[in-house]
Amino acid sequence: MSIKWTSVLLLIQMSCYFKSGGCGKVLVWPTEYSHWLNMKAILNELVQRGHEVTVLTSSASILVDPSISSSIKFEVYPTSLTKDDFENVLGELVDTWMYDLPKYTFLSYFSKVQEMFWKYYEIIRNLCKDAVLNKKLMDKLQTSKFDVILADPAGRPTTLSETMGKAEMWLIRTYWDFEFPRPFLPNVDFVGGLHCKPAKALPKEMEDFVQSSGENGVVVFSLGSMVSGLTEERANVIASALAQLPQKVLWRFNGKKPHTLGPNTRLYNWIPQNDLLGHPKTRVFITHGGTNGIYEAIYHGIPMVGIPLFADQPDNIAHMVTKGVALRVDFNTMSSTDLLNALKIVINDPIYKENAVKLSRIHHDQPAKPLDRAVFWIEFVMRHKGAKHLRAAVHDLTWFQYHSLDVIGFLLACVAAVIFTITKCCLFCFRKFAKTRKKGKRD
Amino acid sequence: MSIKWTSVLLLIQMSCYFKSGGCGKVLVWPTEYSHWLNMKAILNELVQRGHEVTVLTSSASILVDPSISSSIKFEVYPTSLTKDDFENVLGELVDTWMYDLPKYTFLSYFSKVQEMFWKYYEIIRNLCKDAVLNKKLMDKLQTSKFDVILADPAGRPTTLSETMGKAEMWLIRTYWDFEFPRPFLPNVDFVGGLHCKPAKALPKEMEDFVQSSGENGVVVFSLGSMVSGLTEERANVIASALAQLPQKVLWRFNGKKPHTLGPNTRLYNWIPQNDLLGHPKTRVFITHGGTNGIYEAIYHGIPMVGIPLFADQPDNIAHMVTKGVALRVDFNTMSSTDLLNALKIVINDPIYKENAVKLSRIHHDQPAKPLDRAVFWIEFVMRHKGAKHLRAAVHDLTWFQYHSLDVIGFLLACVAAVIFTITKCCLFCFRKFAKTRKKGKRD
Repeated sequence: MSIKWTSVLLLIQMSCYFKSGGCGKVLVWPTEYSHWLNMKAILNELVQRGHEVTVLTSSASILVDPSISSSIKFEVYPTSLTKDDFENVLGELVDTWMYDLPKYTFLSYFSKVQEMFWKYYEIIRNLCKDAVLNKKLMDKLQTSKFDVILADPAGRPTTLSETMGKAEMWLIRTYWDFEFPRPFLPNVDFVGGLHCKPAKALPKEMEDFVQSSGENGVVVFSLGSMVSGLTEERANVIASALAQLPQKVLWRFNGKKPHTLGPNTRLYNWIPQNDLLGHPKTRVFITHGGTNGIYEAIYHGIPMVGIPLFADQPDNIAHMVTKGVALRVDFNTMSSTDLLNALKIVINDPIYKENAVKLSRIHHDQPAKPLDRAVFWIEFVMRHKGAKHLRAAVHDLTWFQYHSLDVIGFLLACVAAVIFTITKCCLFCFRKFAKTRKKGKRD
Repeated sequence: MSIKWTSVLLLIQMSCYFKSGGCGKVLVWPTEYSHWLNMKAILNELVQRGHEVTVLTSSASILVDPSISSSIKFEVYPTSLTKDDFENVLGELVDTWMYDLPKYTFLSYFSKVQEMFWKYYEIIRNLCKDAVLNKKLMDKLQTSKFDVILADPAGRPTTLSETMGKAEMWLIRTYWDFEFPRPFLPNVDFVGGLHCKPAKALPKEMEDFVQSSGENGVVVFSLGSMVSGLTEERANVIASALAQLPQKVLWRFNGKKPHTLGPNTRLYNWIPQNDLLGHPKTRVFITHGGTNGIYEAIYHGIPMVGIPLFADQPDNIAHMVTKGVALRVDFNTMSSTDLLNALKIVINDPIYKENAVKLSRIHHDQPAKPLDRAVFWIEFVMRHKGAKHLRAAVHDLTWFQYHSLDVIGFLLACVAAVIFTITKCCLFCFRKFAKTRKKGKRD
């Protein structure tokens, strides 16, 4: 089974203090950036349903911010790393992935990726160490007697299958509107898009700008929360393509204003992405292909132009291209014309909008809503002290048992024993016969 | 993937006349006996939700009876077979399976099974023929423009995987309270127990008898709707075991009254099985192991003693034994003592009741109810004209593509080509070198 490490939430059953029908204690081990946005949606729902939620986070945390909610508890442990250090390491990682990696040859690519990941693992390992070796913190967590751990297992220094084997339930951040159909185990639920909501009204200035687009509508453009800036050259290539569109463009952009920027394009430090994608004037979403953004587009039925940058983004966009709701352009090699052509096709060929609406209908038409199912399984693991009835025995097999090598070995041994015995018998009979014949001849 | 043929309902998308939000036209191709009981639960729900349901059945049908409901339409086509013929063939099949097959040796067993099934297939094939060659009937069905076919694919002369490949959605008549966890595809939903309901009050006479059991409670015993009678010898072995219990026994039994029958045991032509299993005085269910009966026991948390007779029943009981809610005795070889001991253990060792209650809690604790999910997917296939996004590409692969033999073949060809080229080059160089040396020597 191929499961992407970027798309799993795990439920690990802890202690046994949860009373049926009562409220439980949930410990959360989160991951930064887009993962945290999904997690927050689940945690808010759990708190609303009366559960006690504690998020374990380090003092260097970037987005996991104790000030976001008064009803979620935060257990912040000290770490030698500062928030800036952490942000710099991640920024460097992203820049290398975006700009340097595509230039590497096949072999040096893999050694560079490995080097990058070891750097990242080292940071995460130190954060883990600072938590685990903090005796006061560990004592406090142990006496708190949590019912369940909700862990986001991205980029940890163990194999994914090992971590997954320990989990009672896997919540996957996608669904079949995004995934290609393939087999999965019963303790897996696909809860993609759980953070999506109907669009709210836009701020006045933004709504006016959107309305000024008239019949042509608007283009929404964001490369996500992890990319802080683009090179001047790339920014100008993009801006000059956008300038040639009859649509108005809302571009979430933090860097220096590109000199090719057209009067139809406005730059924003932050955009209400979900509300914009749900706006009736929105024609296309230009995206780096993070799962959260893609899901907001699917939710509202908006076709996409994908400019994947790193990690799972190229793969995500490939899914959307295959489903017929997106075109892909290459960030490093595209010209203004490439981007412009892709945008024109997706805006003007009705098939992209039709497919996006189909995908949206499928997304909205499930036996139970993704957020409800995510919360259901968290509560289930607490109520039943796990979900043993959904756990496949495969997790307890060794690799040779998994591949049936023990069975094959035994059968081969049986065949060998039979062949050996038959050969011995034949030889014995043949010798006996030869002896008798010899004796007969001699007589 | 191992899917039992006895446990699947298929949804096959038909025409395109279903309007979103409106009501659809459902054509049903049912199977007899226990399968029909499940199907009826779904059909009643569909009718209640305003859909037009038409059941296609032959004049020889046994349980699929047009008089059961005025809101379900029945399209009964004439067939040369009579109801009695059909019932006799099935009865003979069951008797052979129960009494004769267990006496066969390993090899003759399989040839006998094959012979039995060919006999059954021949009957079913004739029923199919009588439908398909009935031009008037086919014209009527064609002009009716159905949105979806709900087909119960048991015992058809085609391979199961072929039939399944054509279906949009598979509804499996079990769930993970019954199944062992294993991978499955996204267009499969496990809706086992969809026919189960809370218990209703028993008829006065039966309730009095049940209450007369006092602290000891009662034993509910049924071998299902397909078994008409037992041999006198087997009936007496069973009756004398039941006579030694302190419990009162309600036995669904159609044959001659066994002379060993104790005063604690009452025989009934029919019992309200679900209501009895939901009665607080019920201690154990003696069952042949049909999925419907097992699901009623799971629903109400009642442990079981299994006496499997044929088809999937031994397998079903094996599942329940592994889940710790049942003991199994062998129908043909058991003595009164064997049955009595099994009953005593299941009644008196609290672990069986505990496990049954655990299984029941799991069964009742699902994100959506089985019947609701079954109806949801039928409506989904109508609303979206299929469920293409859930259909794995594997159904379109040939067997050599499925096993990646085309890829392996290509890679082997590449390796062979490289080895061939290298060998040729080496030989060429070697010859050249040898020639030069020879020439050098001669000079």
